[in-house]
Amino acid sequence: MVGVALVPQLNEFGKAGAITTAENEFMYEKSIHILVMLLIGFGFLMVFVRKYGYSSITATYLIVALSIPLYMLIRPYLWGSASNLTIANISMLLFAEFAAASLLIAIGGILGRVNTSQYLLVGMLFTPVYALNEWLLFSGTLIPSGAFLDTAGSISIHAFGAYFSVDMISMLTTKKESEITIETSKRSNEFALLGSAALWVFWPSFCSALVSVDKIPLAAINTVLALCGATLATYVFSILIRGKVDVADIANASLAGGVAIGAVVANVEPGWSLLIGLVAGTISVVGYSKIQPRLQRLVGGIDTCGVHNLHGMPGVFGGLVALLLVASPMWQFAGVVVSVILSVLMGVIVGFIVSKLGRKETPYDDKDEFILPD
Amino acid sequence: MVGVALVPQLNEFGKAGAITTAENEFMYEKSIHILVMLLIGFGFLMVFVRKYGYSSITATYLIVALSIPLYMLIRPYLWGSASNLTIANISMLLFAEFAAASLLIAIGGILGRVNTSQYLLVGMLFTPVYALNEWLLFSGTLIPSGAFLDTAGSISIHAFGAYFSVDMISMLTTKKESEITIETSKRSNEFALLGSAALWVFWPSFCSALVSVDKIPLAAINTVLALCGATLATYVFSILIRGKVDVADIANASLAGGVAIGAVVANVEPGWSLLIGLVAGTISVVGYSKIQPRLQRLVGGIDTCGVHNLHGMPGVFGGLVALLLVASPMWQFAGVVVSVILSVLMGVIVGFIVSKLGRKETPYDDKDEFILPD
Amino acid sequence: MVGVALVPQLNEFGKAGAITTAENEFMYEKSIHILVMLLIGFGFLMVFVRKYGYSSITATYLIVALSIPLYMLIRPYLWGSASNLTIANISMLLFAEFAAASLLIAIGGILGRVNTSQYLLVGMLFTPVYALNEWLLFSGTLIPSGAFLDTAGSISIHAFGAYFSVDMISMLTTKKESEITIETSKRSNEFALLGSAALWVFWPSFCSALVSVDKIPLAAINTVLALCGATLATYVFSILIRGKVDVADIANASLAGGVAIGAVVANVEPGWSLLIGLVAGTISVVGYSKIQPRLQRLVGGIDTCGVHNLHGMPGVFGGLVALLLVASPMWQFAGVVVSVILSVLMGVIVGFIVSKLGRKETPYDDKDEFILPD
Repeated sequence: MVGVALVPQLNEFGKAGAITTAENEFMYEKSIHILVMLLIGFGFLMVFVRKYGYSSITATYLIVALSIPLYMLIRPYLWGSASNLTIANISMLLFAEFAAASLLIAIGGILGRVNTSQYLLVGMLFTPVYALNEWLLFSGTLIPSGAFLDTAGSISIHAFGAYFSVDMISMLTTKKESEITIETSKRSNEFALLGSAALWVFWPSFCSALVSVDKIPLAAINTVLALCGATLATYVFSILIRGKVDVADIANASLAGGVAIGAVVANVEPGWSLLIGLVAGTISVVGYSKIQPRLQRLVGGIDTCGVHNLHGMPGVFGGLVALLLVASPMWQFAGVVVSVILSVLMGVIVGFIVSKLGRKETPYDDKDEFILPD
Repeated sequence: MVGVALVPQLNEFGKAGAITTAENEFMYEKSIHILVMLLIGFGFLMVFVRKYGYSSITATYLIVALSIPLYMLIRPYLWGSASNLTIANISMLLFAEFAAASLLIAIGGILGRVNTSQYLLVGMLFTPVYALNEWLLFSGTLIPSGAFLDTAGSISIHAFGAYFSVDMISMLTTKKESEITIETSKRSNEFALLGSAALWVFWPSFCSALVSVDKIPLAAINTVLALCGATLATYVFSILIRGKVDVADIANASLAGGVAIGAVVANVEPGWSLLIGLVAGTISVVGYSKIQPRLQRLVGGIDTCGVHNLHGMPGVFGGLVALLLVASPMWQFAGVVVSVILSVLMGVIVGFIVSKLGRKETPYDDKDEFILPD
Repeated sequence: MVGVALVPQLNEFGKAGAITTAENEFMYEKSIHILVMLLIGFGFLMVFVRKYGYSSITATYLIVALSIPLYMLIRPYLWGSASNLTIANISMLLFAEFAAASLLIAIGGILGRVNTSQYLLVGMLFTPVYALNEWLLFSGTLIPSGAFLDTAGSISIHAFGAYFSVDMISMLTTKKESEITIETSKRSNEFALLGSAALWVFWPSFCSALVSVDKIPLAAINTVLALCGATLATYVFSILIRGKVDVADIANASLAGGVAIGAVVANVEPGWSLLIGLVAGTISVVGYSKIQPRLQRLVGGIDTCGVHNLHGMPGVFGGLVALLLVASPMWQFAGVVVSVILSVLMGVIVGFIVSKLGRKETPYDDKDEFILPD
């Protein structure tokens, strides 16, 4: 070991904690699976914008590369070194990956309208707020420890990122931008489906990452069934509402089951998970087809990836389902409200700051910033 | 836990069984790997049909989303609740994924000629028959328990799906359809190679999913060597037979080693696995280049993905290799015969039913059913 | 078990060794992750050559399929059967995968200028030399056991493959070939980014594959931070040097952190890993933008994938960082020198042999060897 501490907080995290080998093994595995979800899942899902593929993937790389170390630096200031020591194992990586996931959701709404370096700025401002919200919900300081049920972050990861985004977009959409059609192509949509599939298959690891070892089989089966339910509902409602299937519905709304089941993934029986998934998929398709145009008019901005439909509404739905299961629904409701208020408020502020720093010349196009092949 | 049982059978599966943490950990890992094989592996392998990518992937999503819960609902009726309790852990997910894999093989033959909703109908009819065949082979009712050697489903998963498919196609190919050239493109074939690679790399998890913990290293090494053998044989025979390499051979026949080794994966030494792979790859390439045209004339239909070459013949080959290793070759042979007869018979019946419910307007094309970019 | 030994060495590897279930479980997991890196990671990263995608992926399949069994056959001759018995478990698969990785790096330099079958010849000649170098460094015969620190192969895997390649290319580039522009396209670069992302996310498993169980969390976090550092440095220096971002920098240099951290991954604290990654990413971008053109003139050949920038310099950097940590820097330095000399020498010889066996008719194009869609 090098004795000199280059970055003191970071240097704590590799030390062996008081967890078992089995726990570390499960967590190691899931930390890799979630990395797949971040870089390949979120990254390629955003490649659906035909001329903006390089930017989408590069932004994903940068956001992950920024937010993981940044979160690791911030967390000990909030949780204290005692807490730091008890998590001095691979769980720190999992927490940091969750922060990156929430940030990727947050930039999904403004995708294509700011410069790549501005995503980094959003990341620098978002990550501390995300960490603060997590600390408010789970540290026992504001809400009693264990009173807020959100095992896999329906509220604290998904809804938080989505509502942060929904408010940023009002600051980050010009009139000209809101009139541009976001172009897709077969190729770009097939890459998006690949990203979607990577999210689908590794979602059980996202949902069971912090679940105790004995509950992991339950959480994994619940997640798969919720995704199955959402996938079936997506297909049916996409045809019913649109006449033909929109493949963007399949790529996105199929995942809504994973978003919604997060809060209660270790607390319901599998039959209920299938039902939660069916409802979440339905909510999400209705969101993409019916609610999004109205919401965009309401907030005066474009939600490029439709994060409100995939992470916003299904996340809140999941957090509210937990109301039926917790000892004190008031605390559960309080946690949802705190998260939504904090994210909305900070989304506006961050959007405002970023909007003052110039804008992308050609929206939804790589050409300003990347060297392109002929 | 929610006390009310929404779907009683499903609600049993999350309960902790009498298996060790190590077993659950291995099985968890493999259940995720097999999901990758289903959605990304099978899904993108089928994207080789140039204009049919949206349908191929959507069909994959739907089939997985349908067959996993459906199998979970059916199984307890066959195996009884006692058996249900002993598998009340993540192994239930593995069994359900195997059912989905076999179903994906089955639709591979008819791909592009029926509507997306008809794949769901095939799934509803196939899954109970698949579960019945599995029960006949392994429950001890028909064949003595343990007498039929098929550790990773060369017969019960691969050959069963393939022979089901080969007979469906005779009912589901019109004269017009059999004269259409199935178009590919560089893009579509590169996606197919991606699907193929996803299958190749996770195949050791497919083959060792239900192997005892101490045999997993052997099973993993055997699977890799069988895939290596098949890959080398594919390249050599593709050139020898065709003059130039057909990349569809590489994408498909390279995997035949994984299909064939399944039956005996925990029962042979690694040198034999390499040999089994070499033979399986050869069989598969000869299938794609020489046998398929004749078979298609014989059954009067098109095998879109060539499932007979990848899953049919190599699967039966693997099941017959097991004849050399089992205590009672008669029971082994009986198991192969039961599976082939049941799949052929039901394939004809299901094909007939589906053929009565209309057909796809434009074969091998997304445009009937999907909203397409300009 | 089949009693007859078809290939005696291979048949030893499946036997249970004296390692714990936990060790085997971690190693199993990593062996699969590294397979993903080989076939999907390296394979698709090389698809950036627009007209050469089929060849790149097929070559990857073949090289993996050749080198894994070949390495397994060779190793016991070097290490002896006693050593063979102690590794008679899944670690043999890991060692063989490392050999395949190094070989894939080695062919990266000559990619597109030789026939597919010639990659197999390179593989047959490279693998024994790779195994010899590994034996010299780690067996205790030349360098005292444990004196050379290279936990995840910065030197023995990455630099060895890269310097082997850099010398082969001088033998395998004609004047005509060196004047051809290697064409890319949006599609081909997006596939390359997919390969890159697959490498990024599974790199922690590459780096911690042979680390003791208690050090795995540290090694995983170190690897992630090194990759984060390299990714951030890549973006910044790509813009600073080129004015706009070259997406090839993102796809490649972002990974340099993983290359460089390999040697010391279990021996530094995480803060240092971030710094090592920042430096490695910088070295790599400078390599791609500034050094490669000069190096190519110097050696008189084209480094198609820029392996010197990604695996060569960052690998040597990692090996030299270890000088600060080892008990005896002289042995560490000796190991670096032995590896570089052996790889350079053999690269020239192998390049010479291969160059005598004819050349590809149309460089960087699939059309000579593959059946193409219209």
